[in-house]
Amino acid sequence: MSNLYDQQTDATYERAGWGAAVTRGASPALVVIDLTRGFTDKSFPAGSDLTEVVQANIELMNAAHSRDIPVFITRIVYQESETLPGVTTWLTKATGMRGMLEGTEAVAMDPRLPIDPERDVVLEKKGASAFHGTPLAALLRARGVDTVLLTGATTSGCIRASAVDAVQDGFSVLVPQEAVGDRAEGPHEANLFDIQAKYGDVITVEDAIQYLDQS
Amino acid sequence: MSNLYDQQTDATYERAGWGAAVTRGASPALVVIDLTRGFTDKSFPAGSDLTEVVQANIELMNAAHSRDIPVFITRIVYQESETLPGVTTWLTKATGMRGMLEGTEAVAMDPRLPIDPERDVVLEKKGASAFHGTPLAALLRARGVDTVLLTGATTSGCIRASAVDAVQDGFSVLVPQEAVGDRAEGPHEANLFDIQAKYGDVITVEDAIQYLDQS
Amino acid sequence: MSNLYDQQTDATYERAGWGAAVTRGASPALVVIDLTRGFTDKSFPAGSDLTEVVQANIELMNAAHSRDIPVFITRIVYQESETLPGVTTWLTKATGMRGMLEGTEAVAMDPRLPIDPERDVVLEKKGASAFHGTPLAALLRARGVDTVLLTGATTSGCIRASAVDAVQDGFSVLVPQEAVGDRAEGPHEANLFDIQAKYGDVITVEDAIQYLDQS
Amino acid sequence: MSNLYDQQTDATYERAGWGAAVTRGASPALVVIDLTRGFTDKSFPAGSDLTEVVQANIELMNAAHSRDIPVFITRIVYQESETLPGVTTWLTKATGMRGMLEGTEAVAMDPRLPIDPERDVVLEKKGASAFHGTPLAALLRARGVDTVLLTGATTSGCIRASAVDAVQDGFSVLVPQEAVGDRAEGPHEANLFDIQAKYGDVITVEDAIQYLDQS
Repeated sequence: MSNLYDQQTDATYERAGWGAAVTRGASPALVVIDLTRGFTDKSFPAGSDLTEVVQANIELMNAAHSRDIPVFITRIVYQESETLPGVTTWLTKATGMRGMLEGTEAVAMDPRLPIDPERDVVLEKKGASAFHGTPLAALLRARGVDTVLLTGATTSGCIRASAVDAVQDGFSVLVPQEAVGDRAEGPHEANLFDIQAKYGDVITVEDAIQYLDQS
Repeated sequence: MSNLYDQQTDATYERAGWGAAVTRGASPALVVIDLTRGFTDKSFPAGSDLTEVVQANIELMNAAHSRDIPVFITRIVYQESETLPGVTTWLTKATGMRGMLEGTEAVAMDPRLPIDPERDVVLEKKGASAFHGTPLAALLRARGVDTVLLTGATTSGCIRASAVDAVQDGFSVLVPQEAVGDRAEGPHEANLFDIQAKYGDVITVEDAIQYLDQS
Repeated sequence: MSNLYDQQTDATYERAGWGAAVTRGASPALVVIDLTRGFTDKSFPAGSDLTEVVQANIELMNAAHSRDIPVFITRIVYQESETLPGVTTWLTKATGMRGMLEGTEAVAMDPRLPIDPERDVVLEKKGASAFHGTPLAALLRARGVDTVLLTGATTSGCIRASAVDAVQDGFSVLVPQEAVGDRAEGPHEANLFDIQAKYGDVITVEDAIQYLDQS
Repeated sequence: MSNLYDQQTDATYERAGWGAAVTRGASPALVVIDLTRGFTDKSFPAGSDLTEVVQANIELMNAAHSRDIPVFITRIVYQESETLPGVTTWLTKATGMRGMLEGTEAVAMDPRLPIDPERDVVLEKKGASAFHGTPLAALLRARGVDTVLLTGATTSGCIRASAVDAVQDGFSVLVPQEAVGDRAEGPHEANLFDIQAKYGDVITVEDAIQYLDQS
């Protein structure tokens, strides 16, 4: 399944029944997660240089737009009142996320992304998952979506959390690996391993685009 | 924060604002996740020998019971109709979970656990998270719980997924490390790292019991 | 829209843009809500004689089964530990629901219903909505369902709550009126009015079966 | 319980165990629902003159602010892309809600409300319930809230839906009746009846303020 861990792990996972391929449905959507400047620009504390990830997302968003495949975009945004002590539990642990303040540059979408405001829906979220406390699952269901391509940042945080929720919400999950990024390589790899074993298929962008062509 | 990854990762995480301590509230609950025989007994395909984890859970459950701290217990259980192709999306990827069938030994609670049927609530779940598609968050709120101790199996699957949901649902998360187990060491360590950095505090059982004493 | 209220109400609702017809999708499911003996048998405190409602549900379930349309069935069931004071918030208000105890006759499915255990999925719930704290939305999405027919009891409680959640979760809602019942006529009528105005189409069983024929 | 329906209904409801009083907890919050100009100003199609309701909300918000009780405010807001056919299921039925567009006067908060931007949290929602697809339950839990006072508009839509979700999410529900309004009297009364019977206590504003004084 991978060479991240040892052969014993692979044997254990095979026996436990992990890692089968998902069903690729006839009706995909692209979900672009948290590619705001606070994550894609290394000048922000929680950011790193995600230029290659952004490029892969540009390619996938253009592919989706040209095939009329729905695109949903999420970003973490807090009002100042939500960042006060004790108001948003996650911010006690994730102190760096307190900087994702409404109206600041940190929460502006990466300007390189070809967002189509007439069709794309932009959702605000307050936690790691793109689904938790948002209407994303409802919007996907309304469009008849059966399969989600999850892209963006970070692999070990919001992508992982969204993959778990997506499959729990009844959607097949595909993660095009060049289109997801992280500020640290170790957690990036470890979470791709977990996703591939348990929640969705980790694929290439090329494979993703071929799939979109057939949908 | 850990020596799982390199110093560069630690520096990156410190800059990004990960790893702060959670607030330990005055009203904890113990959530024991998926300690059914299909997970704790190595004779089952998805199981492994979790004897030490079960011992730590016995200690924590006894501590909770003696202090009148609420205990919630989850287990994965499917009706046969839920395991038919296309009915439960996760089972396409997680083929091993199809064996968690109602009425079989695989879904029986580990008989060593001191469950108190008069007080403990046992919840059935269909996915990785103890919160998703269950009334757990509502039950915790009804009891006034502010802090959850998450224990059980597996660290890289249901514990991780539950930790993410717990903090998103507004609960402080503590994970007593001897009380969570996994069938493979690599993913166990990688997910403890992620939990400690982003979602909850990874602590010792001794620390957990001292905390329960003060609640 | 109705003659339950006065002409002024109708004019106000028309101006406000309520009461348009839903989109009937190509992929329906039947969701049969709380037709347990505690609701359908008047010898139980919260029950009433729902014989005609049960008959309409038999007709709809047979129609669904013969067309291979998915059937989901819900029932309210509590463990005794969930009925202790302060554990399930709803039971403080809804004291009558405390009698819906696991293992008792009150929570047994009405024996007249043609449940097919090989295909139908039976879900337990703890509140009014068939969706809240259950995996129902995920199961519907996994099957590609776009439209739900909601039937069962009671119109003013669990049907209304489920209709609101269904449309919020992205499903078109149809309520075949002979197939929903209530212990009291006033709230039954008032809630059919609200559902028709705001959440789904109140239709006849005959219309529902014609729709299933075309799906 | 009420004289909206006949004595038979009252007897039936008493036998069924409806209408008990909720537990008033030590930690309340005020949730002000959808008092935007599109609802409170009769010049908007879905609006009506809610001057008295707004006055009652001003009184309650001031009472909450002066006692440091958390205030959460919701409003329905859609991006244009969310109002396209088939994107938000509810808007097919609720055509009037399509006018609740981001950046328009219809979604501006009623200017008479004493919102405190430094403390109050304003949440956007896409459906009837203040809880569905929003982080409200998590925010309430983080603040230790056990009891919600639900106010605003409309009684038969968003208040009713929010009352059902609040109790399902584990919160005691109080509805101060002068502080909730509707564009039509019949549905207003019918839904107060249902809420009082099944989900929360319908009380006076005076009683609500006395309760806040004791918290």
